[in-house]
Amino acid sequence: MIKHGGYDGEKQGQVIDFSVNINPLGLPEKLIERIRESFFNIVSYPEVNGSRARGVIARHLAFDYPELSKENIILGNGATELIYLFARALRPKKTLIIQPTFTEYERALRLLGSEIVYFQLSAANNFQIDEEKLLFKLKETKADLLVFCNPNNPTAVFTGYQRLEKVFAYLKKISANIFIDESFIDFTDQQSSASFLDKYPIFILKSMTKVYAIAGLRLGYALASSDLIARLNVFKEPWTVNSIALDIVEMLLKDKDYIARSKKYLRQEKAFMKAKLSTIKGLDVFDSSANFFLLSLKNQKASVLEEKLLMKDIYIRSCEDFPGLDDSYFRVAVKKHQENVHLIQSLKSIVK
Amino acid sequence: MIKHGGYDGEKQGQVIDFSVNINPLGLPEKLIERIRESFFNIVSYPEVNGSRARGVIARHLAFDYPELSKENIILGNGATELIYLFARALRPKKTLIIQPTFTEYERALRLLGSEIVYFQLSAANNFQIDEEKLLFKLKETKADLLVFCNPNNPTAVFTGYQRLEKVFAYLKKISANIFIDESFIDFTDQQSSASFLDKYPIFILKSMTKVYAIAGLRLGYALASSDLIARLNVFKEPWTVNSIALDIVEMLLKDKDYIARSKKYLRQEKAFMKAKLSTIKGLDVFDSSANFFLLSLKNQKASVLEEKLLMKDIYIRSCEDFPGLDDSYFRVAVKKHQENVHLIQSLKSIVK
Repeated sequence: MIKHGGYDGEKQGQVIDFSVNINPLGLPEKLIERIRESFFNIVSYPEVNGSRARGVIARHLAFDYPELSKENIILGNGATELIYLFARALRPKKTLIIQPTFTEYERALRLLGSEIVYFQLSAANNFQIDEEKLLFKLKETKADLLVFCNPNNPTAVFTGYQRLEKVFAYLKKISANIFIDESFIDFTDQQSSASFLDKYPIFILKSMTKVYAIAGLRLGYALASSDLIARLNVFKEPWTVNSIALDIVEMLLKDKDYIARSKKYLRQEKAFMKAKLSTIKGLDVFDSSANFFLLSLKNQKASVLEEKLLMKDIYIRSCEDFPGLDDSYFRVAVKKHQENVHLIQSLKSIVK
Repeated sequence: MIKHGGYDGEKQGQVIDFSVNINPLGLPEKLIERIRESFFNIVSYPEVNGSRARGVIARHLAFDYPELSKENIILGNGATELIYLFARALRPKKTLIIQPTFTEYERALRLLGSEIVYFQLSAANNFQIDEEKLLFKLKETKADLLVFCNPNNPTAVFTGYQRLEKVFAYLKKISANIFIDESFIDFTDQQSSASFLDKYPIFILKSMTKVYAIAGLRLGYALASSDLIARLNVFKEPWTVNSIALDIVEMLLKDKDYIARSKKYLRQEKAFMKAKLSTIKGLDVFDSSANFFLLSLKNQKASVLEEKLLMKDIYIRSCEDFPGLDDSYFRVAVKKHQENVHLIQSLKSIVK
């Protein structure tokens, strides 16, 4: 079994869970009303392929990407369904994954028999992508799929797409594909890769569960060329997205105020946390372009820290299972201010 | 795209939909309260493999099947997820499907490259299974998987498992598997095949969405040997069942009064419908051991009837796409009494 964030032990309900990267503002208020109104709809089957919700997303994206239509969109029971569906539909022979990153890509692709190779980022380089080295690695390995997450989980590093155009152009030339997980991009002001959709063979994964704090409902989508979406639809299972999730898509996408407040809160709170965490000796804090921080311990093990923090009702994500990280690394989400203060104080008292 | 029940046209909200086989009693009242209380939980990820809910199901089943544990149970995002997961995990070479039946089994298995052969039931024999002929067909085709639905959709015929023991014993002997979809069995008083779990290599699919009228929420599970469940878990995707569905499992299984009322209603209403429908000349009504009826037209096409009924705000499921049926067949769910009366009167005025 793959390790995931999410506290699931005996202190449930009591622990402050910094291991999952959910919007700390909680459910949008409008959503609560909307679900109250619409949950009687669960008697009926959800629309089999979510055609209406795809139309809603297409109209929402049309402000920035007028060439997109619902034929460029596929819905998922969370972004996770689409990782596995992509693997099944494309069956790449050899995949290059930029590591360390979310572990489900590798599992999904291995299940379909893809050979997996890594392009390893390093702490010494602040987990930045060196695009020349990446291009060299792609040519060397002859991978027919490149997979990465942007901003990346767990490093919280965002890579601007302009820097990657040479890489994308090469992959297009050799008829390879590019899988980009943008699950955390809506927490930032960064530009999506969607403007490259008609230029390069990219598949862009979008999560709505993290930014709208609806992880339990499962809702994601992906953008790609209509040809690629059609290939996925050959394998798509019916009724995967539940009717509550389908019903709320429009309301969520229209709630621009919630996103604006979320971004503003994160900007302030991240500055506060970075400043405070940086004063703790024995701790390295990496810059964050997401709603979480990657940290490393100089003289301690994260697994030991995890146990000690749990005694203070705090749960963190130790990162020893991420390729290229080890037991000195851990990840924490940005949560409510008082929760973050409690984390910082607890770290101060434990970390040497 | 495979054809499915469920009206999705311009008259939505106005049409009485007889094409989907959902419990006509609607949402259990206790469920409505329970969801109101628990829906704030959607902020958090659902338990990754639904361990608690599997424990609840195991305890519920323990009354009838004390040897079952949660290692014999796998949860699904609706029963549909488990059809596809089963196909991926088992990859049978050759599958014998008892037809006519639900079309997703064939799609799921074809996607994995299984050769598909049919054991065809016939109207002349009231779509009953002749177990000797079935055994002969299995030996002749050397299929390594038998797939059937019981009670069967769309024929509404239930086959007692004692009659199939010789077939099951043969399939065990040749190390083949048996896939049984019992999605509609909880509408009946029939015995499940679960008592044969330790004797034969069966995989039993259970839907909770139909009998509890929560099609929009997606919730199903399956029972099998712990070995077979472990094989499925190799391919199981994380977080597929949303947290609302997980939260309500216990409440639903404990609501025995709802099931008792549902069965009582169906018994009475089916007797009423059978009697009334049988008086319509030009119409054959098959016996029903489920919550729906299969009917056939003597002198008309079901597709034409479908159009005419839609003008009266009634939607039926014409069955021309089921292997072995043709455009004279259609299926209707048992719905609320006044809705059923409206259907019967409309059929009387149209069918010749």
